[in-house]
Amino acid sequence: MRQAEPMIHQMKPLACDPARIKGMSERLIISHYENNYGGAVKRLNLIQEKLAELDYSNAAGFLINGLKREELIAMNSMILHELFFDGLGEPSEPGSVLKQALARDFGSYERWRAEFVAMGKALGGGSGWVLLSWSAHDGRLVNQWASDHCHTLAGGVPILALDMYEHSYHIDFGAKAGTYVDTFMDAIQWGSADRMFKQFG
Amino acid sequence: MRQAEPMIHQMKPLACDPARIKGMSERLIISHYENNYGGAVKRLNLIQEKLAELDYSNAAGFLINGLKREELIAMNSMILHELFFDGLGEPSEPGSVLKQALARDFGSYERWRAEFVAMGKALGGGSGWVLLSWSAHDGRLVNQWASDHCHTLAGGVPILALDMYEHSYHIDFGAKAGTYVDTFMDAIQWGSADRMFKQFG
Amino acid sequence: MRQAEPMIHQMKPLACDPARIKGMSERLIISHYENNYGGAVKRLNLIQEKLAELDYSNAAGFLINGLKREELIAMNSMILHELFFDGLGEPSEPGSVLKQALARDFGSYERWRAEFVAMGKALGGGSGWVLLSWSAHDGRLVNQWASDHCHTLAGGVPILALDMYEHSYHIDFGAKAGTYVDTFMDAIQWGSADRMFKQFG
Amino acid sequence: MRQAEPMIHQMKPLACDPARIKGMSERLIISHYENNYGGAVKRLNLIQEKLAELDYSNAAGFLINGLKREELIAMNSMILHELFFDGLGEPSEPGSVLKQALARDFGSYERWRAEFVAMGKALGGGSGWVLLSWSAHDGRLVNQWASDHCHTLAGGVPILALDMYEHSYHIDFGAKAGTYVDTFMDAIQWGSADRMFKQFG
Repeated sequence: MRQAEPMIHQMKPLACDPARIKGMSERLIISHYENNYGGAVKRLNLIQEKLAELDYSNAAGFLINGLKREELIAMNSMILHELFFDGLGEPSEPGSVLKQALARDFGSYERWRAEFVAMGKALGGGSGWVLLSWSAHDGRLVNQWASDHCHTLAGGVPILALDMYEHSYHIDFGAKAGTYVDTFMDAIQWGSADRMFKQFG
Repeated sequence: MRQAEPMIHQMKPLACDPARIKGMSERLIISHYENNYGGAVKRLNLIQEKLAELDYSNAAGFLINGLKREELIAMNSMILHELFFDGLGEPSEPGSVLKQALARDFGSYERWRAEFVAMGKALGGGSGWVLLSWSAHDGRLVNQWASDHCHTLAGGVPILALDMYEHSYHIDFGAKAGTYVDTFMDAIQWGSADRMFKQFG
Repeated sequence: MRQAEPMIHQMKPLACDPARIKGMSERLIISHYENNYGGAVKRLNLIQEKLAELDYSNAAGFLINGLKREELIAMNSMILHELFFDGLGEPSEPGSVLKQALARDFGSYERWRAEFVAMGKALGGGSGWVLLSWSAHDGRLVNQWASDHCHTLAGGVPILALDMYEHSYHIDFGAKAGTYVDTFMDAIQWGSADRMFKQFG
Repeated sequence: MRQAEPMIHQMKPLACDPARIKGMSERLIISHYENNYGGAVKRLNLIQEKLAELDYSNAAGFLINGLKREELIAMNSMILHELFFDGLGEPSEPGSVLKQALARDFGSYERWRAEFVAMGKALGGGSGWVLLSWSAHDGRLVNQWASDHCHTLAGGVPILALDMYEHSYHIDFGAKAGTYVDTFMDAIQWGSADRMFKQFG
């Protein structure tokens, strides 16, 4: 039975200048990008190589479950990290289209922000993501909780990602997760979210 | 700070005739549709009502985490159950566009099927989903593991969903998860997957 | 470097008479015992055989994580299923020592029961366990939530286990998880919990 | 129906001198102890206060699941953090009783160590624990995987805990999880594990 070659994933270059994220050190951004994002990409390639060799019809269920779970962790870690870095840069405001949609779906831009910030702070000391996602099902924007890379909205399009794994902040902020969240909010470059919202929203 | 009214979710009518799914009883389909899908919709409305009352700025982190996690479980359960039922009906084959894409991305249609089937059987006795999803990131179709409702591919569009929660089969099949998976494969109505693939793929 | 032979796990015989559990069919009990408990024991032996062959110093991290996670799932499924079956039989009351401890730690036996029952019903339609456990850390009994086999109290000794995976009830009760929970409460044989509490509590 | 007062948990004093853990800074140890361990203790008290007010018979299932899950996270975080700090101090070797048990159950002390180290490194960049636990069920010591606080061996007694949440190492080691694991191994004070093994093993 013919099977496909696994796709080789490459790291996407950093869109932002890591030396110019206000309130975060270059060392933190570079370590996050190279080790955590880069690590996920490398791991994904190795996992998919293993999966390509798998004779699914005869493989033990626990091997399939173990490898496919690790694949999902690595895929989502790769995808969400790219989104995280795409959202960092020169401080900005959401474009008017997105801003209006936030006001429509959350009641006001301020309410959206208060929810997003509180969800980030609630994950401090643990792991996970806060994702602003377009729900294709509901036709509206939602803030979505995640405590690990695998947790995402079914059929959703995440357009802004706040990484709450501790590797995102401990080097600079130690356990001060709240300060990190506030710093992130002030360093959002909304261009990428605006473009994704226009494309998918 | 102005906030939006929560959306009221309604159950989507069953697209298939529950009395005519080959190899599954009407009782199983109806129970699954009303209790598990319907239960998720009802629960989601209640959770979002609670969330709408939440003063995020002052709420304890554990309350936010607890409710937002339950919201994600209910949202994904709703969305994936709809997809599951949309995929059941008169036995069929994938349309030629989707079939070619499966061959391209998995090497052959048979390889895709062998993977999907093996992943379903591997989840027997536990809980979870097997999802055929379009990965916007990779520009290809992937088979995705899930051991609970929250596990989905970031930015992915699931187009076919095999429910491996035991409520999907125990009434008819008892612990024979493998027989259920084979029965499901023979009862796939590909029309919905074809349409979604044309729209998003 | 010398390494140990993996332990071969054997199924523990059913302590109860499966034909005499009030309100549950022999078919349900036997299927649960043979397929779900038996399946976990078989799987555990296979996983530990694989792990014994692993060269940990050179193995990829994702292989270690995948296999060790599957091992924990299987180990806990085995252990908790044994406890579940040990708790079924002729209806009874907790012995006086345990009953007093329940009253002391929950305020009253009725409060313990109301919590335990409500926790079970809350898991209906999903997966998991409700465990009455002795917390060595706190020196008291606690009711513990689990949504999969891996979730247990650190250093706790579970003495009574209510299986909320749908394989525990769907054959007999369909989606009526609440009726199953009530039936279970009336079929608890407390002898095993009494003995464990005397030994560990 | 009478109910008990919630237990008020207090922080256990640090057994080790945080200024004298070889290879880890006092700032790291103090931050970990005060913020992550201390945070869990504070959160647990608040969660249990909420749970004490809950009218279980009428509460929505999602509220029960949300709060009881957060309780388990906090309880296990508290318990495992105490064990982690109890295992740090003047470098030492396991006592002869425990060392012989490790050799018996893993084949050799070196094999145990290689497994434990590799499991820690495999969790680098994510979250979780590696636990050396006494399995009451199997009558042997096992190394147990965890990717979050809730994952522990049913009925197991953890006697040594390696914290792989990134708050355990990022301040000092950045993303170099492997170096942290090696440093931990050289800073184990086995006295507490020896005592627990004598008591429970």
